[in-house]
Amino acid sequence: MASDKKPRRPRAETPKGFRDYFGAEVTERTDMLATIAEVYRAHGFDPLETSAVETVEALGKFLPDVDRPNEGVFAWQDEGGDWLALRYDMTAPLARVAAQFRNDLPSPYRRYTMGPVWRNEKPGPGRFRQFYQCDADTVGAPTVAADAEICGMLSDTLEAVGIPRGDYLIRVNNRKVLNGVMEVAGVLDPSDPAKFADERGIVLRAIDKFDKFGEAGVRALIGAGRLDESGDFTKGAGLSDEQADIVMGFMQAKRDTGAATAARLRELVTGSALGAAGVDELDLIATLLDGQGYGADRIVIDPSVVRGLGYYTGPVFEAELTFEILDEKGRKRSFGSVSGGGRYDDLVKRFTGQEVPATGVSIGVDRLLAALRAKGRIGGKAEGPVVVTVMDRDRMGDYLAMASELRRAGIRAEVYLGNPKNFGNQLKYADKRESPVAVIQGTDEAGRGVVQIKDLVLGAKIAASASLEEWKNQPAQVEVPRAEMVETVRRMLGLGV
Amino acid sequence: MASDKKPRRPRAETPKGFRDYFGAEVTERTDMLATIAEVYRAHGFDPLETSAVETVEALGKFLPDVDRPNEGVFAWQDEGGDWLALRYDMTAPLARVAAQFRNDLPSPYRRYTMGPVWRNEKPGPGRFRQFYQCDADTVGAPTVAADAEICGMLSDTLEAVGIPRGDYLIRVNNRKVLNGVMEVAGVLDPSDPAKFADERGIVLRAIDKFDKFGEAGVRALIGAGRLDESGDFTKGAGLSDEQADIVMGFMQAKRDTGAATAARLRELVTGSALGAAGVDELDLIATLLDGQGYGADRIVIDPSVVRGLGYYTGPVFEAELTFEILDEKGRKRSFGSVSGGGRYDDLVKRFTGQEVPATGVSIGVDRLLAALRAKGRIGGKAEGPVVVTVMDRDRMGDYLAMASELRRAGIRAEVYLGNPKNFGNQLKYADKRESPVAVIQGTDEAGRGVVQIKDLVLGAKIAASASLEEWKNQPAQVEVPRAEMVETVRRMLGLGV
Repeated sequence: MASDKKPRRPRAETPKGFRDYFGAEVTERTDMLATIAEVYRAHGFDPLETSAVETVEALGKFLPDVDRPNEGVFAWQDEGGDWLALRYDMTAPLARVAAQFRNDLPSPYRRYTMGPVWRNEKPGPGRFRQFYQCDADTVGAPTVAADAEICGMLSDTLEAVGIPRGDYLIRVNNRKVLNGVMEVAGVLDPSDPAKFADERGIVLRAIDKFDKFGEAGVRALIGAGRLDESGDFTKGAGLSDEQADIVMGFMQAKRDTGAATAARLRELVTGSALGAAGVDELDLIATLLDGQGYGADRIVIDPSVVRGLGYYTGPVFEAELTFEILDEKGRKRSFGSVSGGGRYDDLVKRFTGQEVPATGVSIGVDRLLAALRAKGRIGGKAEGPVVVTVMDRDRMGDYLAMASELRRAGIRAEVYLGNPKNFGNQLKYADKRESPVAVIQGTDEAGRGVVQIKDLVLGAKIAASASLEEWKNQPAQVEVPRAEMVETVRRMLGLGV
Repeated sequence: MASDKKPRRPRAETPKGFRDYFGAEVTERTDMLATIAEVYRAHGFDPLETSAVETVEALGKFLPDVDRPNEGVFAWQDEGGDWLALRYDMTAPLARVAAQFRNDLPSPYRRYTMGPVWRNEKPGPGRFRQFYQCDADTVGAPTVAADAEICGMLSDTLEAVGIPRGDYLIRVNNRKVLNGVMEVAGVLDPSDPAKFADERGIVLRAIDKFDKFGEAGVRALIGAGRLDESGDFTKGAGLSDEQADIVMGFMQAKRDTGAATAARLRELVTGSALGAAGVDELDLIATLLDGQGYGADRIVIDPSVVRGLGYYTGPVFEAELTFEILDEKGRKRSFGSVSGGGRYDDLVKRFTGQEVPATGVSIGVDRLLAALRAKGRIGGKAEGPVVVTVMDRDRMGDYLAMASELRRAGIRAEVYLGNPKNFGNQLKYADKRESPVAVIQGTDEAGRGVVQIKDLVLGAKIAASASLEEWKNQPAQVEVPRAEMVETVRRMLGLGV
């Protein structure tokens, strides 16, 4: 259809909160995912890849009193009227799969999965609306040996991707202990679990913010409420000072050894059967991990870990990187959490009505990559290709053959395919690609059966610093017979000949 | 919040047209993507990963006269009123990136990308709404050497993933030749490109359906129209018999050699400058590929290839698997196309107003995997873990230590974490996991410092076929000292000790 009206040009922009990943950013993530998959597989976990799209019903984010279920998720209505959405984590799809294929899957079902998840949240610096998660979960294993296994595997995984022992710590707690403490403090009635649920929610979120608000802030939040610096008031849980003392005592129950911490916790939950069961579980996890050599330098019991999510029902755990990095303003700060998980015995029940015990861990791969980059452990120079330059555009076939030959010898290589008129542009291109070597053959060289081979790494060094003497002794460009091209390039790249 | 009303349970279902991938389905795809990436990288292509979500404006699917841009894409409106959508291919996001980062990217920009794309289309057998694409494109290279490079790389890629020479064919054509033929046939006026655009669209789609409708069907479609078996009538392009002869002559111009085909095409486009330029390009591509040893057993010029997409402007190509497979009804059929691409010089221009030459290829990874599975070249048994059974639940620590030891020796291993009460269930579990070996240690064995090691592969063979004599000579279960557990398992798995 012809039109006289020129349409407005579309904007070439990523949507707000999304970004593109180039070159080494992609390969470094691919490599990390492969390493993690290897550790998970060795532990008997099998891969699963669900689709990015789920029904909102299965994700459990549909609020009947709201028109659009877009609270935190990207959702749309399909032609049939069903609401679909992008998954916001890997746990909800697993619960759906465990219910849908419950007659076919082995039980227990150990699975790992890796891929992007999407959150319809306000983006911020370093916070994107699409990011990678890499999860491992065991569905159908009631024993806390499954939780212990996952904590140990998380430790192995962090070391496998390049976080040495001493640079991370996995902290383990148990929601049952916390609930036992709530019972002792009088904000949980085992005969009426719904009573005080709001108060407990506030306490849970307050404990999770200990790092941010400190003891006084948490105490205010579990008591009358907290007034922040700007003058805004956050309603508190309304606990009395006596009740608050019990909760604060729990948070600060960590002792030098796991046994001492467990003993202190046992005191705190005196009188609560649930709390006692939680301490027993923590004891068993600690014993199982100790028996496999995961000492307190890697995994510790720490009552201050609660994990924000409401669905955890037993052990919870978190991996923290303990080293300091410089933030965007050059201030030192500890890197913080890169992974977390715990036991959730009720998620599959949503679908089937039957309780299915499950526990799992999620690694924030993008955060882990950021940590390794901040420490300079990955993010070296990308390895550019050898560039075969084009001196004579009628001899393109010869240049393509040179690149083929180099590739057959295991060397990444390409022919310059832009406009060859300006040779300087070809070398600028090679520079931008971080090419180590350029191959040059004009009509004259072709006639004499030779090629020029330019060591671009050495050339850059000489240009930057060398004296004239050095330049003479170690020329960055050599002329060799065409038949010796591959051999010469391999030598320049430090490969065997 | 307490509620007396029991909410309806959500259905545990994948949304219509989506599916989950388990175990080897995931690892086989991961392995194939890694192999393809290696070939692409060797040719100088750099990885790019764009987000799954784009603005509808950037994708170019917004129709101003429609409320919702859901024609073929999954789209939704964000809070700010902008329409967002899941990418439906990898080319549209590349055009956006090439425009957005044009000052930072090298030029030419060779990039590869791999990941899922989404189509809001009616699903069918084997047709899903999410599938993988694996693309390589060169942006900013005007020379058809770039197209030749991509055809050669496609050939290398197919062989690298396990399609041997002779089982595939890459067919190359050029839209300019087709347009030259249209000009000669009188349905293209170079001074008014918009004229006859509808007719040309019908001709293009008709040629693309040659395999399906045969010569008579295509002739009907480019002429008066086609009546199908059900009685439905499809409007034709309205070409006269004489015009139709010219178009049909083009489709059937393939000769035994590339040179003969090119000569025949040159006759057909006599009088059209555009057509002659197209034949020149085909000639050059053939020469460049021949020079690198890509003969007619791998890449041929074939005028019947047109590729449906409207945006191609020059060379187009398609890779077809030439072997036959059995379809779901047991009938033999040729597997068909697994990859296609071509030159599109106008896509980046949408954003910048400046023409940017580009060419690329897309591999349908899921189809390629299906082909390899149909030929039995992948899809062997999954390699299950060694299962350490639990005879005595108080000795969980010992069992976990055994699994750790096995893993440290490079063996995939896990402890059974279901309810250990029924030992038969543990062996059934090992069977479902396709475990090669089970390790057993009850109280008695522990007291004597030994373990039982059961060869499940051999056991299954004996159960299926062996005589009593054979059973005696080669027992499927052995008792060994605990210290020899790892060594014995390694021997049973056929690994070095």
